[in-house]
Amino acid sequence: MDAAAPGLACPLPFSQHSEVTVGHGGGGRLTQDLINRIFKPAFASPAPDAEHDGAVLETAGVRLAFTTDAHVVSPLFFPGGNIGTLAVNGTVNDLAMCGARPRWLSAAFVLEEGFPLARLNEIAVAMGAAAAAAGVSLVTGDTKVVERGKGDGVYITTSGIGVLEHTLSIVPASIRPGDAIVVSGDIGRHGMAVLALREGLEFENPIESDCAPLAEPVQALLAAGLEIHCLRDLTRGGLATALIELAQASRRTFSVEEAAIPVHEAVRGACEVLGLDPCYVANEGRFVCILPAAQADAAVAILARHARGGGPIRIGTVQPGPGHGVVLRSEIGVDRVLDRLSGEQLPRIC
Amino acid sequence: MDAAAPGLACPLPFSQHSEVTVGHGGGGRLTQDLINRIFKPAFASPAPDAEHDGAVLETAGVRLAFTTDAHVVSPLFFPGGNIGTLAVNGTVNDLAMCGARPRWLSAAFVLEEGFPLARLNEIAVAMGAAAAAAGVSLVTGDTKVVERGKGDGVYITTSGIGVLEHTLSIVPASIRPGDAIVVSGDIGRHGMAVLALREGLEFENPIESDCAPLAEPVQALLAAGLEIHCLRDLTRGGLATALIELAQASRRTFSVEEAAIPVHEAVRGACEVLGLDPCYVANEGRFVCILPAAQADAAVAILARHARGGGPIRIGTVQPGPGHGVVLRSEIGVDRVLDRLSGEQLPRIC
Repeated sequence: MDAAAPGLACPLPFSQHSEVTVGHGGGGRLTQDLINRIFKPAFASPAPDAEHDGAVLETAGVRLAFTTDAHVVSPLFFPGGNIGTLAVNGTVNDLAMCGARPRWLSAAFVLEEGFPLARLNEIAVAMGAAAAAAGVSLVTGDTKVVERGKGDGVYITTSGIGVLEHTLSIVPASIRPGDAIVVSGDIGRHGMAVLALREGLEFENPIESDCAPLAEPVQALLAAGLEIHCLRDLTRGGLATALIELAQASRRTFSVEEAAIPVHEAVRGACEVLGLDPCYVANEGRFVCILPAAQADAAVAILARHARGGGPIRIGTVQPGPGHGVVLRSEIGVDRVLDRLSGEQLPRIC
Repeated sequence: MDAAAPGLACPLPFSQHSEVTVGHGGGGRLTQDLINRIFKPAFASPAPDAEHDGAVLETAGVRLAFTTDAHVVSPLFFPGGNIGTLAVNGTVNDLAMCGARPRWLSAAFVLEEGFPLARLNEIAVAMGAAAAAAGVSLVTGDTKVVERGKGDGVYITTSGIGVLEHTLSIVPASIRPGDAIVVSGDIGRHGMAVLALREGLEFENPIESDCAPLAEPVQALLAAGLEIHCLRDLTRGGLATALIELAQASRRTFSVEEAAIPVHEAVRGACEVLGLDPCYVANEGRFVCILPAAQADAAVAILARHARGGGPIRIGTVQPGPGHGVVLRSEIGVDRVLDRLSGEQLPRIC
């Protein structure tokens, strides 16, 4: 996809990397590069699909969604959650973004020797609570231990299976010109909550992660009969990266009103201090929904009933004609084309 | 289960561990302790089932198997495979042990900064080849990067979905008195291959890992109409641990003829030098099949057609009456009760 990326070209010579860099884990161009150069050719078709949060599979007339996520967040505990809540919600949300009802999760732990069992217990309890809240069952697991200095406390990989109970095709290819782009709530809180803690920053208003399960709002949208064309949660790389991926995958141009994007005052302030763009900051309980413009108000109303924190809003429109990027219109009417980050704004945020 | 464990009691005061130890990852008593004390209470029912290699789930009349495994083997490359082949075959085999036809895999990578991309490519290529050989598709994935000193090159968690295409209930509860215990081939090769490399041991006959997919032999047993009662692959903790787990879960006593257990000469020699018992050494392409005694010869004949390396053989019998352990009868007729290892004979073997 990089060849078709619009706007600013990234100056990094990807092909000359001979080693894994932190940027390869950022969900941006370098991650894409890894997938395109190594995993796609090796795994043959159907390859792990970088354009979607999970795979939709069919057996005996049943449509299943299947997804996996490794979690390496640092620090392990942060305002609004811990690696356990993140691991459960991250996978629940990937299933929800496939339009599936999340049903079953697996959890695999890589523990570092010396990690306190009391902390592990806190994490496990949080996972159990998050699973119950999201209506999923943790049904199978694995535990491995590595020596001191070969891990970082605990890494958790969760995988999940969901069931699609409708006939919609919720994928980038379903996106149509004229569609509305709705965001489910204010952005950037998870990333800033983790960053503030990690860097020892103290803000007047402490920022709490938005980490939350998204299956319920998605099921509510489906139950209302809305014709959802595409869903995407705003994790690594934030709103901007999610929209760029969808624009490229659907071969459309998205226009977005910068002033409409909801950002909590504390997050905006923290981002300004740190020189970060909230549009690229990770979320763990926010998503975009792309659907016919006539249904945008209904979607916003439904999402408002499920919103935690700032409310949902329509932020943009899918333009007619072919394209492959996101145009952000500022309050004074200046357009700029959003570009993928090369590496990662904030490493180990999830 | 520990309270009911037969024979030698382990002197370690498990409840006094306050930190993760290497032994917690061994698949023995400490791993069991972690599951019983932390994960089972936290995850509520249905909990990750330590007594089985995966979960069997049902939706709309379709029976699915779902399993996950984290792989942290050291070194990453060994005679007969690498972490990639292990990650694919390990999950394929867990699905096969549920009696499922493996269909779809996910792969989540935790990469350490500085890991050579050329090595990652070798691993990915090996995964693609192993998946093709096992007839499964790698359909979804994730990649995270951690800083130097927070990992060990690469950890891979694979999860898998399989479909049960029969009506048998292949679980410990199906084990019946009089059943035959058949092992699918010679034991201990994977563990000794990794250990020899790691410790720089040089044997006259280099030992190659038995790492291999087991779906085909299991499907062949099912296709022949054999009434399989239980299957278990012989990974961490080896043959002894697998049999102890099954004996305890089925509340039976298994009697096993020590002389019948197939061990390759090179493995036996290496174990003798190192003071290890091959019955506790990990395998990655071996399993036991428990089925009616009248069908044992047929099972052995089918497995012989699929065996790589040493041939399959019947090694024991499920005794009448209740029980919960494994009795090993030596060549000179002396019985001894096998016990679970406390921690791990060989850490990071898978």
